[in-house]
Amino acid sequence: MTRLCDIGEDALVARLVELMPRDPVAAAGPGDDCAVIDPGPPHARLQLLKTDAMVGLVHFVPDAPPRAVGWKAAARVVSDFAAMGGVPERFLVTVALPATTAVVWVEDLYRGIGDCLTTFGAVLAGGETTSVPPGSAPVISIAATGSVRRDQLVLRSTAKPGDWLLVTGTLGGSSQGKHLDFTPRIKEAQWLVGHFKPTAMMDISDGLAKDAGRLAAASGCGLVLDELALPLAPGCDSAQALGDGEDFELLLAMAAGRVPELLESWPVAFPGLRLTVIGRLVESGAGSLLPGGWDHFAVVS
Amino acid sequence: MTRLCDIGEDALVARLVELMPRDPVAAAGPGDDCAVIDPGPPHARLQLLKTDAMVGLVHFVPDAPPRAVGWKAAARVVSDFAAMGGVPERFLVTVALPATTAVVWVEDLYRGIGDCLTTFGAVLAGGETTSVPPGSAPVISIAATGSVRRDQLVLRSTAKPGDWLLVTGTLGGSSQGKHLDFTPRIKEAQWLVGHFKPTAMMDISDGLAKDAGRLAAASGCGLVLDELALPLAPGCDSAQALGDGEDFELLLAMAAGRVPELLESWPVAFPGLRLTVIGRLVESGAGSLLPGGWDHFAVVS
Repeated sequence: MTRLCDIGEDALVARLVELMPRDPVAAAGPGDDCAVIDPGPPHARLQLLKTDAMVGLVHFVPDAPPRAVGWKAAARVVSDFAAMGGVPERFLVTVALPATTAVVWVEDLYRGIGDCLTTFGAVLAGGETTSVPPGSAPVISIAATGSVRRDQLVLRSTAKPGDWLLVTGTLGGSSQGKHLDFTPRIKEAQWLVGHFKPTAMMDISDGLAKDAGRLAAASGCGLVLDELALPLAPGCDSAQALGDGEDFELLLAMAAGRVPELLESWPVAFPGLRLTVIGRLVESGAGSLLPGGWDHFAVVS
Repeated sequence: MTRLCDIGEDALVARLVELMPRDPVAAAGPGDDCAVIDPGPPHARLQLLKTDAMVGLVHFVPDAPPRAVGWKAAARVVSDFAAMGGVPERFLVTVALPATTAVVWVEDLYRGIGDCLTTFGAVLAGGETTSVPPGSAPVISIAATGSVRRDQLVLRSTAKPGDWLLVTGTLGGSSQGKHLDFTPRIKEAQWLVGHFKPTAMMDISDGLAKDAGRLAAASGCGLVLDELALPLAPGCDSAQALGDGEDFELLLAMAAGRVPELLESWPVAFPGLRLTVIGRLVESGAGSLLPGGWDHFAVVS
């Protein structure tokens, strides 16, 4: 019997998507950070749809502050809207919890979600609460709508060989704390799509090695990463920067000719936040992928 | 320490909603079957948003056929769109599963979801897969968008004292099998909103006693149910019809004067499917609520 942990997350998703009726008019569907729905030419904005889940003992420990857990659950989704060049709008919040959970824990969880929604101008539209059997891990599942200006949409599949790869902030060691209180890069992504629109973009959730490989593969490119150039978080080495995951920084591709001007303008717009060239895209088949990254179904041997 | 099982689902939701930024332009928000988003007057259709979750050992047993579990997970959501007078459009499917789950089980689950989407003209827009710790119950969380013609939207909060209450099909005993292969009442609801628009409508998911009480409370009415009139499923008594839940039939309110013509037209449109008057709405404070119904957080004492 083949189990999920035998094939891994990407292969599973590829198999499942084949089984389902797909949207004939989607500008981007399963495989990008968000689904993109085009309501038609008179509309200046496209609709974005996203769903994401967090599980106790997988994405947070039992004694993590619930308000931080809530912030993280919502901020992960906001980060995906940022990665498409868009903004979040309406949230649907589903929690599946043991019936013995303290009411105050759930209230603090929602306060954290609410903090994030308020910070990024989004609202609660609906939700669902259900019980899980005693001893089961709690699950927080968040779906949301957002939107993006038609001319500012950035996919992960549209980079070209020759483009340079850049990353915001620093990478690695997120599990030491940053993963619970990170700030989604909405502001930075909005600035980028307005001034230096990337040829492709995504957020780094499963580790640079895996996610850069996904961007390259989706764009039909090979990939060369410069391990010595990686912007390391304090106390981290390059293996952690490549593999830890949950950085929630922006990974973007940019035509080489635009990079110098971008690197000049960036520190003026965002003093104190690094933007680093970490590699380039090459013809498919060339390049080499560094090992590392997080797979949700490869954790059990 | 107050636990979820001490206050129950409705009180929990009421407390959580108060903590969150809300949509100032929502035509209906938390509390109805779907959230309703009005894109503005030029648009003939309103957008509907819905999320729903199913948990192993709570909503299905471990040896339930996965294709039927998938059908149920999607059909529950379709049923909510029906209850608003709308239709489903785009689905986001999130599964949180132990890494040791058989790939074929997950594929069959998605085939069941796909069966339901195809049947009702909806498509997959995106999704998420994640692991849960060994021994944790699997969670299937489905969010979806839909739409409804502006003039066909039906809320659960707009019934009036004097309206009669009707229900489609038969009630009770769903856990004997129907809960896994029920047909959401999209066709029937579309016919109703086109020919005999109800003053209020919802689907029965937590049992008639609880759900009829919710419709009456949302409408600011009291409620009288006629226990002897309940359309019982084969082998069920009225306690089961009131409390079992997961009937996924339509509960609708209708001005008394329109009911005779409705009851004449219905069997022509839907031969073999019952439509039964089961009570009426009265002034708030009058009437009496029969006991029963399903509360997700009142199952542990």
